[in-house]
Amino acid sequence: MSKNPFEIYTEKPTTIDGIYSQAEVGLANRNSGILLETLALDVTPTGSHYLLSHFDVPLLNPTTHSLQFSGSFNAPFEMSIADIMALPAVTMPVTMECAGNGRAGVSPRSFSMPWLYEGVGTSEWTGTKLAPLIEKACPNDDVVEISFTGADYGYDMGEPHFFGRSLTLAQIKKLDVLLVYAMNGAPLLPQHGAPLRIIVPGWYGMASVKWLTNIEALTKPYDGHQQVKTYQFKAHKDDVGTPIQSIRVKSLMVPPGVPDWSSRKRFVPAGGVDLIGRAWSGDGVSIEAVEVEIAGEWRVAKLSEKKDQYAWQKWTFTWQAEPGEYILRCRARDVNGNVQPLDPPWDQAGFANNAAQCVLVFVA
Amino acid sequence: MSKNPFEIYTEKPTTIDGIYSQAEVGLANRNSGILLETLALDVTPTGSHYLLSHFDVPLLNPTTHSLQFSGSFNAPFEMSIADIMALPAVTMPVTMECAGNGRAGVSPRSFSMPWLYEGVGTSEWTGTKLAPLIEKACPNDDVVEISFTGADYGYDMGEPHFFGRSLTLAQIKKLDVLLVYAMNGAPLLPQHGAPLRIIVPGWYGMASVKWLTNIEALTKPYDGHQQVKTYQFKAHKDDVGTPIQSIRVKSLMVPPGVPDWSSRKRFVPAGGVDLIGRAWSGDGVSIEAVEVEIAGEWRVAKLSEKKDQYAWQKWTFTWQAEPGEYILRCRARDVNGNVQPLDPPWDQAGFANNAAQCVLVFVA
Repeated sequence: MSKNPFEIYTEKPTTIDGIYSQAEVGLANRNSGILLETLALDVTPTGSHYLLSHFDVPLLNPTTHSLQFSGSFNAPFEMSIADIMALPAVTMPVTMECAGNGRAGVSPRSFSMPWLYEGVGTSEWTGTKLAPLIEKACPNDDVVEISFTGADYGYDMGEPHFFGRSLTLAQIKKLDVLLVYAMNGAPLLPQHGAPLRIIVPGWYGMASVKWLTNIEALTKPYDGHQQVKTYQFKAHKDDVGTPIQSIRVKSLMVPPGVPDWSSRKRFVPAGGVDLIGRAWSGDGVSIEAVEVEIAGEWRVAKLSEKKDQYAWQKWTFTWQAEPGEYILRCRARDVNGNVQPLDPPWDQAGFANNAAQCVLVFVA
Repeated sequence: MSKNPFEIYTEKPTTIDGIYSQAEVGLANRNSGILLETLALDVTPTGSHYLLSHFDVPLLNPTTHSLQFSGSFNAPFEMSIADIMALPAVTMPVTMECAGNGRAGVSPRSFSMPWLYEGVGTSEWTGTKLAPLIEKACPNDDVVEISFTGADYGYDMGEPHFFGRSLTLAQIKKLDVLLVYAMNGAPLLPQHGAPLRIIVPGWYGMASVKWLTNIEALTKPYDGHQQVKTYQFKAHKDDVGTPIQSIRVKSLMVPPGVPDWSSRKRFVPAGGVDLIGRAWSGDGVSIEAVEVEIAGEWRVAKLSEKKDQYAWQKWTFTWQAEPGEYILRCRARDVNGNVQPLDPPWDQAGFANNAAQCVLVFVA
């Protein structure tokens, strides 16, 4: 597989605001987003959690699959899924968001998965803590990073590779990374990384490598495609880039009332309307406030306490809706003072757009 | 909710081949398709089965939800989910396909969910047979149809309604309709119709009403929006139409080799390549043959026996791939002699496009 048949695709096609290619629609049909009405639930129903697969989903055999520790470890080993399940188990609700969520709102749009708002979800992940296993494998003194490689293989920008990412030893200590084999109380589904994946709470989803086959101790910084070529904030194509890591502060609302099937515009009967939504930030940082904009005025929503460090918080606001047309918006502020912008932050690949959601509503 | 705020949307926007609007991308982000590589499996993994929701997913309480029998029954009754689960249970693998599957391949394209090939899946549905319950409720002699109404409500073409469909008594006797509360061995997920839906095997998915609340015996033909205004084959907009019912013969293949992330074009190393796919037809009719087209030549694939009346059949073909560019196609023929066309059959709303799938492959 040394020849590169995809050289002609290394230049991404030009995109035009509001107009999409069939390739983008193909990605949207293949990758699936959360149904926004399920934001009413603490845990996203299985199958409604967003899903983005770079390549094909590998269909692996959980009874023969093994995880290899390799590279500059002093005591490397190999584990079966049964071995991993015999270790102390942790179940953790984690809000995960795709780094590309909101890409379709950034102008000019980058050619890739055209998320509007749907690339998010919260699941209860069950697994065991990664840090003690790294410690057991005993990285040598010259180790600078640990890489995680999945079984999913394909081409991106003409470059063939297994999907892989890395973390530094300091990040692994700090980040509560889990080695995960179950989701919402059931074995991982094939498309969510069965039989084994990692979950990196508080970071965008690209870090949570699926179909995990190998953990390698590296003496040089990892140069995998998905670490250095993509998932970098870039002001322009030739920018060196800054790695994308923590999730930016964000909120979403359940679109109120009932929809029109195709336009998804909303109709709300006049009177009291209970607006419901969720807000989250990166690294387990709590939300301090959520505001809702109605007819140009920002009003403070009622915010639920944070129950789980890495899971979103619920917010509600009762709106006395009067007849008319409205564009509702919501924005969150975290306890570190980060606030959602009203306009999409610029990134050439449309990453991490956390601009306030707009929902068009007709009240009658 | 008598006023209609969506009158302006009754005329669908014009579409252009290969160019899609943001509203279509929004539908594609919201509704999710099968991951074609899971066609290798008899049963589609939960969450990879296609999903199309006309309105918002209602979040219903299974312990308080009830099913009403109403209208012209001599002995109408009401049942809880527990009542229904106490009846004799049947588990049935059923291949379900969206009537709009393939819409994006029809020119000019109708503005709606822009499926390419992904609107299909096979699940193991568990429930109880509908026909004995209808018999128990005892339709009066003047009954001509039975309607099924879901809890999902919204607007389509300016018309507000709960999603609903009907079947004649003769169809109910013939069609092995199930009243379903579980999918793949687990309680129905919210987005798949929890806590109760029907499954109409062998028909396109619109007949399998989700979030079922009411079964009504009608003395006149049902005139619900989703029965008479949509889901009709029409040569042109003002055509009276013919109801869409049985699934048309169709086949799909797992795209071979490995993908390019964004274009989804495939790279295959030269040598023996195992092509794998599925084929199905409506009303439980068996497939007689599947052919694969390679470099302009149609070759007969190996077809597995039908195991379950309403589930797809597996096919395989070993291709000795030589370097070059190929557009692979597959087509099925059922035992009634129905064959997939090579070009999309015309329908003004792009329904039931069963033209042979095309997969672009580079061999090196």
